[in-house]
Amino acid sequence: MNIGIYIYPEAEVMDFSGPFEVFSTASRIADSGNTFNVFLVSEHCQPVPARGGFSVNPHYSIFNHPPIDVLIVVGGVHTQQVKNQTIIEWVKAVSQNTKITASVCTGAFILAEAGLLAGLSAITHWEDLADFKQDYTTVTVVESVRWVDVGKIVTSAGISAGIDMSLHLVSRLVNLQLAQKTARQMDYDWRTTTL
Amino acid sequence: MNIGIYIYPEAEVMDFSGPFEVFSTASRIADSGNTFNVFLVSEHCQPVPARGGFSVNPHYSIFNHPPIDVLIVVGGVHTQQVKNQTIIEWVKAVSQNTKITASVCTGAFILAEAGLLAGLSAITHWEDLADFKQDYTTVTVVESVRWVDVGKIVTSAGISAGIDMSLHLVSRLVNLQLAQKTARQMDYDWRTTTL
Repeated sequence: MNIGIYIYPEAEVMDFSGPFEVFSTASRIADSGNTFNVFLVSEHCQPVPARGGFSVNPHYSIFNHPPIDVLIVVGGVHTQQVKNQTIIEWVKAVSQNTKITASVCTGAFILAEAGLLAGLSAITHWEDLADFKQDYTTVTVVESVRWVDVGKIVTSAGISAGIDMSLHLVSRLVNLQLAQKTARQMDYDWRTTTL
Repeated sequence: MNIGIYIYPEAEVMDFSGPFEVFSTASRIADSGNTFNVFLVSEHCQPVPARGGFSVNPHYSIFNHPPIDVLIVVGGVHTQQVKNQTIIEWVKAVSQNTKITASVCTGAFILAEAGLLAGLSAITHWEDLADFKQDYTTVTVVESVRWVDVGKIVTSAGISAGIDMSLHLVSRLVNLQLAQKTARQMDYDWRTTTL
């Protein structure tokens, strides 16, 4: 199963490295072998300056990536991204063929801009809830949970909530046992309850 | 204050991205402005293939980095590192001038190999505790805590415990309020208690 994590300049470091860690660890410890093929995708295939000066090399650009079964759109300084029609159209197009499209933190603004959250419940970083409600009035904004799963679309709260959501996705895509084993391997206290 | 995070091929992704996120976020939200200058250091100044195929670009090599006030040595597949005398000597030399030298996960094996843990209490990933005790008999191995702070040396348990330890370091280096504010910004449930 191909897990594509979309990153961009000023993306929040843990928004992508947390989910990457979850899926790669789950794949490593799964009884069935390499369950997930997790990779980073960005607009251009060149180093991406993430927030705080963390430079990461994407595996693919939006023009040359393999099929994506689970798309995870991360947060950070998302303001340029929501105005970038190439990205919005790409998210929209890729999502037509995903099993799950998810967001971490303010990545929800990108999904909303692509029209993927209309009429659905969703969450974002606590600091951005007011703006989110104001910008996307057709979205039912949920507060004080780690993630919102409405089936094909899953959104998470801020930064580290992306780890909790990714563990939930492992549970949904494989089983609860693998998700719990992954959390234990990561020495992570999986928060499945409300904030 | 310069925070240097030492990374290497097959380093665990969250071992370095977690602490990086903590210090860069703390710096961003601190009232006093840029409190921390956090950077990644590796043996050579070229892309580092971290675990699971995550490629990250270090800011400096071990030969050209600025002075390091806080050195954080990460875990992952550490076996080649403990045999690499250039690295062991570098860790030893840098630590003579640090305020704090810390490890995340199996990074403790590298500190132990450099002789920095002799006669002290320390912790590592739960899966490696038995090997750690056997390899370094002069270390008092602690279990079931998130981190062990013995003053200049601080060691953390597995992977995500590096986030908890880094928040503790922010608390020590600045104050508890900034550490709590950083955890809140990261939507992270700071685990200060035992496992």
